[in-house]
Amino acid sequence: MTAHLTALARGLAPPRGFVGSSLAAPPVEAIARASAELWQDPHAALRYSPAPGFPVLREWIARREGVDPGRIVMTNGGMHGLTLAVLTVVERGTTVAVDDPVFPGFLWALEVATPHILPVPVLADGFDVEHLAAKLAAGARIAAAYTVADFHNPAQVSLSAAKRRALIDLAELHGFHVIVDDPYRELRFAGRDQGVAVFHDSDRVIHVNSFTKTLGPGWRVGWLVLPEHLVDPVVGLRGRLDVHTSSVTQAIVERLVTAGDELFDQTVRAARTIYRQRAEVLVDALHQHLPGALDVQLPEGGLFLWARLADDGIDPAELFRRAVAAGVVYQPGEYFAAEPGRGSADRHLRFSYSEGTPGELREAVRRLATAFPGGGS
Amino acid sequence: MTAHLTALARGLAPPRGFVGSSLAAPPVEAIARASAELWQDPHAALRYSPAPGFPVLREWIARREGVDPGRIVMTNGGMHGLTLAVLTVVERGTTVAVDDPVFPGFLWALEVATPHILPVPVLADGFDVEHLAAKLAAGARIAAAYTVADFHNPAQVSLSAAKRRALIDLAELHGFHVIVDDPYRELRFAGRDQGVAVFHDSDRVIHVNSFTKTLGPGWRVGWLVLPEHLVDPVVGLRGRLDVHTSSVTQAIVERLVTAGDELFDQTVRAARTIYRQRAEVLVDALHQHLPGALDVQLPEGGLFLWARLADDGIDPAELFRRAVAAGVVYQPGEYFAAEPGRGSADRHLRFSYSEGTPGELREAVRRLATAFPGGGS
Repeated sequence: MTAHLTALARGLAPPRGFVGSSLAAPPVEAIARASAELWQDPHAALRYSPAPGFPVLREWIARREGVDPGRIVMTNGGMHGLTLAVLTVVERGTTVAVDDPVFPGFLWALEVATPHILPVPVLADGFDVEHLAAKLAAGARIAAAYTVADFHNPAQVSLSAAKRRALIDLAELHGFHVIVDDPYRELRFAGRDQGVAVFHDSDRVIHVNSFTKTLGPGWRVGWLVLPEHLVDPVVGLRGRLDVHTSSVTQAIVERLVTAGDELFDQTVRAARTIYRQRAEVLVDALHQHLPGALDVQLPEGGLFLWARLADDGIDPAELFRRAVAAGVVYQPGEYFAAEPGRGSADRHLRFSYSEGTPGELREAVRRLATAFPGGGS
Repeated sequence: MTAHLTALARGLAPPRGFVGSSLAAPPVEAIARASAELWQDPHAALRYSPAPGFPVLREWIARREGVDPGRIVMTNGGMHGLTLAVLTVVERGTTVAVDDPVFPGFLWALEVATPHILPVPVLADGFDVEHLAAKLAAGARIAAAYTVADFHNPAQVSLSAAKRRALIDLAELHGFHVIVDDPYRELRFAGRDQGVAVFHDSDRVIHVNSFTKTLGPGWRVGWLVLPEHLVDPVVGLRGRLDVHTSSVTQAIVERLVTAGDELFDQTVRAARTIYRQRAEVLVDALHQHLPGALDVQLPEGGLFLWARLADDGIDPAELFRRAVAAGVVYQPGEYFAAEPGRGSADRHLRFSYSEGTPGELREAVRRLATAFPGGGS
């Protein structure tokens, strides 16, 4: 029962606790090896770290990001990266444009600085840049814009290359910063990469990433790609808040990714293969057991399927209660509304397909079907 | 040369970078063993942690602190604990009473919330509670008071049992919170423990500690002992800022301290023995090579000796320049002034004796003596 419950459930909890998440294929043996090597020469792991992070790890990340290593600052995971970004570029009480639907964790981080948001719809090709441009033309003022660039949480879509350019142009024109959240970027299993160079070529962008979706959430190791003028402010802020990211975790991850045997790429490739299969199984099962009940697109990557209820007469709260009673949990879309009761988030169901085996996913969909009016097919 | 330079130097850097620090006797073999065991069953280490921290680790800490485990919240080290305390109990723009001299890291954390401080002298028996009481009686209002309770950084003294009680009574009378910073508490090698139960029996106290001075600074693992009414606010704040402390580091530390062979106590005992010897060597060498030049008391624990210049005619800046030229560095006292140019901090030198061997410490003092007028004896 529990397996089916967790199969489609993620992030149900309020800020107090995130629902558990595990990797499809964590490189446990390699981690054990890197860790054992580390304690042969534990000097670096037991001492304070340089404030921006371990140099070799930052260089490895910088090569992959295509930027100077001086622009990489290590963080305690993606959420911490969002917090540092908010505290660095969002003046107290200003307004921030955010995805709608939105990853609610960003709103929790944002509330430390400001309660004021400007919701921007997320379309099939991502954040609606024209919508924001119109708002700005009409006099709205924002300190920053926030979007998940690849395999959006929850909306599954990616921001198109053209709209990446347009968003950066708008930021440079109006002088706001863009907080680009990109934790799922490595998990593309179909379609074409939309590029990140455009983010790194602008001095208005903070690009937030982590090892959470590739090496696991337990590490709490992530990084920011910063424009040069924000490196000192962010590092200074770290000094005030928590000094630096754990030397122990940085040292293990550094050994792991620089082990020379393409371990990181192999791990990510294995995860992609597994997630692709699971996404396909989930979509197939929905078509089979709930034909026409949900509008779904096969994901191109990431962990989530954002399904829209085809029948506007269905009460999503009642559907969720019936689903739980049938032994299956998903994340009701209303959880991701930028503003409660507005937008179309509440007409959606977010499915996470990363943790269930194909058999578990099919069984979960069979149960879900019994919760729909008529009991599915 | 470098050995002598670091022997007496700590914390010289601005918020951007802490000077490196290593333990006298880190339990490297036990860490390697705990770590190897961990990766045999890596489930917990790779997943999200419960927001307040790993339960068995919190229970172990709670037993030592003599409180309910529900009052322990894990942090990313002591500095992070101070930040969480500040963000939880210091309303923006209010005033906070602080040690004078003060650990400057606290002021850096505090500045995120407020620039307003009320400096309180640190006497031979710690924080001057009567001074604060007089200020409050005269109309001053504070949101919180901050002090290092044991083996003060930089002033080396401990808050007496009587003044602990008086400080808590004052806090309960006036309704402010007390942020008690206690990273050196385990490192007592002489004198009598002044007790912490008084802190834990009050709902006005946040007691901040970490494994930095016992297992090493690289872990970034610490904890708060919170009054019950502050547990939910602090855990909620964590959810907004950085989710939780690394599962990997918590899992290793948990295995380490619960290994059952008294490893933690052995480690701390070994450190105490080493630090006691080094403190004695340092004080002896100062008496031998700089008789009468510095007022010093033999420390009862911790890492620091806070020496006062006996001759008011000495220019401390010039002395420091001459010391550096002679190949020895200490922390000039002015670095710890709660307000630049006020108080007597600038008449002091802070020596750290934890990292130098007895031979290195003696050589460092010989060099220091040459920097004094007359070149020492």
